[in-house]
Amino acid sequence: MTAISPEEAARHREKMVKRKAVQDAEVAAKTREKGLLIVNTGPGKGKSTAAFGLMLRALGHGWKVGVVQFIKGNWETGERRAMERFSDLVEWHAMGEGFTWETQDKARDIAAASRAWDKAKELMARDDVRLVILDELNIALRYDYLPLDAVVATLTARRSDLHVVVTGRNAKPEMVAAADLVTEAGLVKHHFAAGVKAQEGIEF
Amino acid sequence: MTAISPEEAARHREKMVKRKAVQDAEVAAKTREKGLLIVNTGPGKGKSTAAFGLMLRALGHGWKVGVVQFIKGNWETGERRAMERFSDLVEWHAMGEGFTWETQDKARDIAAASRAWDKAKELMARDDVRLVILDELNIALRYDYLPLDAVVATLTARRSDLHVVVTGRNAKPEMVAAADLVTEAGLVKHHFAAGVKAQEGIEF
Repeated sequence: MTAISPEEAARHREKMVKRKAVQDAEVAAKTREKGLLIVNTGPGKGKSTAAFGLMLRALGHGWKVGVVQFIKGNWETGERRAMERFSDLVEWHAMGEGFTWETQDKARDIAAASRAWDKAKELMARDDVRLVILDELNIALRYDYLPLDAVVATLTARRSDLHVVVTGRNAKPEMVAAADLVTEAGLVKHHFAAGVKAQEGIEF
Repeated sequence: MTAISPEEAARHREKMVKRKAVQDAEVAAKTREKGLLIVNTGPGKGKSTAAFGLMLRALGHGWKVGVVQFIKGNWETGERRAMERFSDLVEWHAMGEGFTWETQDKARDIAAASRAWDKAKELMARDDVRLVILDELNIALRYDYLPLDAVVATLTARRSDLHVVVTGRNAKPEMVAAADLVTEAGLVKHHFAAGVKAQEGIEF
């Protein structure tokens, strides 16, 4: 916040000129384009939220986007309602039946996961769809509700320019191995621990 | 994927009934509502992206949202273009001048950060705005472009129902201490390391 001396300004500029050369060389070294398999996992908050943020970016470029939710059911959420303004670009399928402790029915959970996976394959096969979000797929895989090998093989064999985002904690090592980009959301501090409840606009 | 025996189905149900009781008790114990200070930090990808996903959720509930970008300048990005469909709800201020190695001018960077912080204070003072996103504020603080104590004091003194999201790596300990929710994005695997370049719809 203090005034900058001419010497400091010159030092800063020199340092930044060097840094720019490094940055430019790094950017120049990256030449490939490819459809990414992106995995958002970890115990922290923001895995699905980051996927929906990426969706927003894609929509800004006019892309068609498909969303399949493997756990969440057909209840109203802010993100779904916001998508009413993008109904020309987004296909949203909330195909879960809720959390396992809500359904209390393993056969029903498995059937729901299988239907959701069928929808995912259908969206990934469509040429006009450029981004597919498979929300909480990691949860369905963690409970062995879907065959891991077949799911990873299908994701790996995706069209070369198709981007897919997979969310959910406890990503399987095979999923991580197949991915291009993996982010682990770490929980540093959470307001639930301070007795704050789930609030509209934040959690749903 | 195998068929479920009646015994296994019953065991599963019993376990889930118990789990539901635990979950319900946890939810019941959380009663407070409050505007959150949310910090998305860490070296991984998805910090700003998660903030924009949260914005989408808020917009679905019809909230007014203010965005101030401390580093990014006025270039076109997917998320900004997507917001044209929410021009009734979103005020977006990209007030940075680009990365430090692009401007190469410390005094100019500091002036830009100060202007952005003034805009942030203005948005936080408005009663109709329910969510304010301060994108890359942590970067401006890390370089001491803004007075940390004053920034944290203003954030802490925010209106009790105002939610604020602060993004950027290297969050200061004082910022983490003031926050209600802190997520650290950890980098597990990145496609840049495999020579894939920044692509439309993914990085911008």
